[in-house]
Amino acid sequence: MYRTHTCGELRIEHVNQEVTLSGWIQRIRNFGGMTFIDLRDRYGITQLVFDMESNAALCEQARKLGREYVIQILGQVQERSNKNANMPTGEVEIPVKSLAVLNKSEVPPFTIEDESDGGDELRMRYRYLDLRRNPLKENLLLRHRMAQEVRKYLDNQAFIEVETPVLIRSTPEGARDFVVPSRMNPHQFYALPQSPQLFKQLLMVSGYDRYFQIVKCFRDEDLRADRQPEFTQIDCEMAFVEQEDILNTFEGLTRHLFKIIKNIDLQEFPRMTFADAMENYGNDKPDLRFGMKFVEITNLAKQKDFVVFNDAEYIAGICASGCAGYTRKELDELTKFVQRSQIGAKGLVYARYNEDGTFKSSVDKFYEESDLKKWAEAFDAKPGDLMLILAGPKKKTLPQLSELRLEMGSRLGLRDKNVFSPLWVVDFPLLEFDDETQRFYAMHHPFTSPKKEDIHLLETNPGAIRANAYDLVINGVEVGGGSIRIFDDKLQQQMFGILGFSPEDAEAQFGFLMSAFKYGAPPHGGVAFGFDRFVAMLAGNDTIRDVIAFPKNNSGRDVMIDSPSAIHPDQLNELAISLKKNPS
Amino acid sequence: MYRTHTCGELRIEHVNQEVTLSGWIQRIRNFGGMTFIDLRDRYGITQLVFDMESNAALCEQARKLGREYVIQILGQVQERSNKNANMPTGEVEIPVKSLAVLNKSEVPPFTIEDESDGGDELRMRYRYLDLRRNPLKENLLLRHRMAQEVRKYLDNQAFIEVETPVLIRSTPEGARDFVVPSRMNPHQFYALPQSPQLFKQLLMVSGYDRYFQIVKCFRDEDLRADRQPEFTQIDCEMAFVEQEDILNTFEGLTRHLFKIIKNIDLQEFPRMTFADAMENYGNDKPDLRFGMKFVEITNLAKQKDFVVFNDAEYIAGICASGCAGYTRKELDELTKFVQRSQIGAKGLVYARYNEDGTFKSSVDKFYEESDLKKWAEAFDAKPGDLMLILAGPKKKTLPQLSELRLEMGSRLGLRDKNVFSPLWVVDFPLLEFDDETQRFYAMHHPFTSPKKEDIHLLETNPGAIRANAYDLVINGVEVGGGSIRIFDDKLQQQMFGILGFSPEDAEAQFGFLMSAFKYGAPPHGGVAFGFDRFVAMLAGNDTIRDVIAFPKNNSGRDVMIDSPSAIHPDQLNELAISLKKNPS
Repeated sequence: MYRTHTCGELRIEHVNQEVTLSGWIQRIRNFGGMTFIDLRDRYGITQLVFDMESNAALCEQARKLGREYVIQILGQVQERSNKNANMPTGEVEIPVKSLAVLNKSEVPPFTIEDESDGGDELRMRYRYLDLRRNPLKENLLLRHRMAQEVRKYLDNQAFIEVETPVLIRSTPEGARDFVVPSRMNPHQFYALPQSPQLFKQLLMVSGYDRYFQIVKCFRDEDLRADRQPEFTQIDCEMAFVEQEDILNTFEGLTRHLFKIIKNIDLQEFPRMTFADAMENYGNDKPDLRFGMKFVEITNLAKQKDFVVFNDAEYIAGICASGCAGYTRKELDELTKFVQRSQIGAKGLVYARYNEDGTFKSSVDKFYEESDLKKWAEAFDAKPGDLMLILAGPKKKTLPQLSELRLEMGSRLGLRDKNVFSPLWVVDFPLLEFDDETQRFYAMHHPFTSPKKEDIHLLETNPGAIRANAYDLVINGVEVGGGSIRIFDDKLQQQMFGILGFSPEDAEAQFGFLMSAFKYGAPPHGGVAFGFDRFVAMLAGNDTIRDVIAFPKNNSGRDVMIDSPSAIHPDQLNELAISLKKNPS
Repeated sequence: MYRTHTCGELRIEHVNQEVTLSGWIQRIRNFGGMTFIDLRDRYGITQLVFDMESNAALCEQARKLGREYVIQILGQVQERSNKNANMPTGEVEIPVKSLAVLNKSEVPPFTIEDESDGGDELRMRYRYLDLRRNPLKENLLLRHRMAQEVRKYLDNQAFIEVETPVLIRSTPEGARDFVVPSRMNPHQFYALPQSPQLFKQLLMVSGYDRYFQIVKCFRDEDLRADRQPEFTQIDCEMAFVEQEDILNTFEGLTRHLFKIIKNIDLQEFPRMTFADAMENYGNDKPDLRFGMKFVEITNLAKQKDFVVFNDAEYIAGICASGCAGYTRKELDELTKFVQRSQIGAKGLVYARYNEDGTFKSSVDKFYEESDLKKWAEAFDAKPGDLMLILAGPKKKTLPQLSELRLEMGSRLGLRDKNVFSPLWVVDFPLLEFDDETQRFYAMHHPFTSPKKEDIHLLETNPGAIRANAYDLVINGVEVGGGSIRIFDDKLQQQMFGILGFSPEDAEAQFGFLMSAFKYGAPPHGGVAFGFDRFVAMLAGNDTIRDVIAFPKNNSGRDVMIDSPSAIHPDQLNELAISLKKNPS
């Protein structure tokens, strides 16, 4: 038996008990005739004591041990004279009677502490050591807890967990698929699922009524900062429901998670149409932890000789409360911020509403005090506030202003990680027109149903159709999204047509779904949550990499196992494929 | 709102309540002026009533509906005059006030009944319809329940669920990998995991102590009757444990599942060494629902002129209780059974111990009554029993006799699907010698630890080394298996040597594990259960296909979605691979 207790378990009531512990050496401290070792395992840290006086040989042996050695000790729990109130085991210690080294350790390439001295690359290469650090361990424990709670909650709501296949069929719509050559079917390929979308819809056709799965999905995308080629979804679908049923069910799940994990009671989630979100926040996932709604002053501002404004389709701004005192330097920073190539604004107009009631703006040349006063009224600004204004084509200016708003939110400390502000964004457009390819794309996916009242626009003005589609947004992050699906094969075929599929293509790719819809498909809809992102949010982490045990880097590589890698020519032969020379 | 209640919910206490139901039409029956419809959903069936007298138009409409139409109805629950005690809703029915067709259905290609008229191929093509049938639905519900219970149990035992990556690195050891070409790293490939083995061991090195995951695994094997290219494991690992800890933990899990799912209290699981299992049952996964242990009579039978026996290395048999009355025809059948090419015995010797105390055997020419009497004593046979005997090289005869034993068990009705007989088989050999390649292979995998007391044989007689490896066998089916792992990098390197890895190969393939072992690896071990098989066993199904929502056929194809399939040349180009002409 390697241990009678874990390193996080012993308390004052265990005093005098003989115990065996096993774990890793976190720290060794020598004080004259005494040596103290902090012994660590997943459950905590217990202090071991060695004493030159009572057992010099053992104490000498202990002094030769190193960090991260795995040892097993036997001893009798005693009360500490010098208690440590910060540790659950801080009232006791163990004078060691016998010691066995279970395994040695070389000196780790970085310190196994909450704040490590190792760089990103090094910690990725030795991920198994990085995972020993408390912050990562806490993240994985949180992830475990959330996964259990999600399943418990949905199980209680009569959802069934069904495993859908990982080896499926490649469909060109959407992002790039990872593919898997089939040896038994030469020159044919499986694809890894970008989501179990079609299978969960088929399960509704099969009558399973409420489905869920916490499931790996795959996208062969060029990886931006916080994407992973494999990621995890909480994937759900329900039959005989309307949008309202789905929003309520998953609002319930979300509230349950916040309550049980963070002990936070979330209020009823507000709802906002996509159109309002864009108009007021320039963003389909507004961060509602703070206000600063956009204020449009296009008409108000166009009455003077300021050509920039007069040429602009759209002029709007935000009111930064209490920022009238911003220095020239701070205002320059903000101007540079909006002019960054990722944001691309031409410039920034500001107007200070000074505490004394006067105004000072970057466009004083063109506007009188009385003009600015009118702006202030529109902005609902008070003395001491700062108005920040952008102008230009509406489509471009909205997202620019959104970035500025978020930046001001951050500067003003209004984006507290411990405050959570959820929101349902609803009524997304069904379709997006792509100027480059001159065709419509499904905004959500081709199976999303149009709103009944907009269906008449299908032939005449498809771009104006609103969908039964919704996103759950928390703190400006899209945590989940979904839609009510089309369940009528005629309408689905019409949709494929609008999306530019020939009837043959639609049949080849989605024939089985069309066919399934012919045999009594129920009304249905669903939602999928980005589980990695959801966990990261509750963990207070900005990057999903910190909540994934073995993530890949931005080139899609696992540097720990050095994957992907070359495979043996025999494997290629068996798969009937060869490597193309000079890959472009 | 599509429904106020499900089709399985209404009882006598709902009488007079107005309800809305939605579901599928299971059956329509017309009786004179009345029409009855059985409305089905996942939760049950409710009887709807239409009456020509009270509403002729509606009744006419109902008569035009077809099987599997999806309808929504409104009506007031009433007590049935003709109650059906076999249905939970059998005391009530709903006279329909209004009816809406939510979706039509073509006539399904096979009947949606417990016993369908559709063949395998057809039902696979229309899997979404097959899944509507009760037996499959019950299987998937059972699978769901088991998955939840496994997680709950392990969570309560402080196990952490950790997701390990699906895109990993190809390792030639073991079965064939499925591989995934990397677009971002041209000419390099990921592999899909055959198991999370290395990752779960790394998690132990990371100090996670108790890990589990219900996880998809992949093997590109030529599919035998009951294999799937993707399958699901309950995968577990523990640190600071000995074999005994693991056996007890997972015996606990197994008993919990049987109790909660089947309400069966399993007794403490017996344990049997691999050597004993082979000697007594010719099989490393003996079915212990019945006896018929092998009885060796090599010495006893070699004393006469029967050259077949005299030339045989090994002569043994089983005693089939009460079968002395087997006819010539039955005995011929058994002889043919053991002579089938899959079994390959030369012949079968029988000896009847007649009720009157006389003997009759197929070798009466060579043996006296008194010889057979001695055999009977060895077999512990009684009058009325039948002795069935095989002879030949021991290595070949043992599995032949095992097949015969299982056949007799089936014939005698001793293999009841509702009886469960679990067993731990322990002390597996560490290595298997392969005559063809003239080298040793790991019987379990290269990370399995040898028994301490056998380590001295590593250099001298590796084939005789026993491993800390164990299988959980229930009713002759290997449900799970695992081992205590090597956690010392020197011993692991020695093992790789014995398995024919050059130090460079070992480093290239498992370097990260070797490296991890240098930084304080704890003693650890684990187990993996074949979840599909485990579910099939509790479902009383012989094939795992019946407990998988969307299985593949024996060619690894999903005939419903027609996968695998050709992909677009652009996809091949992006991946820098091409199809080889004339695949062999």
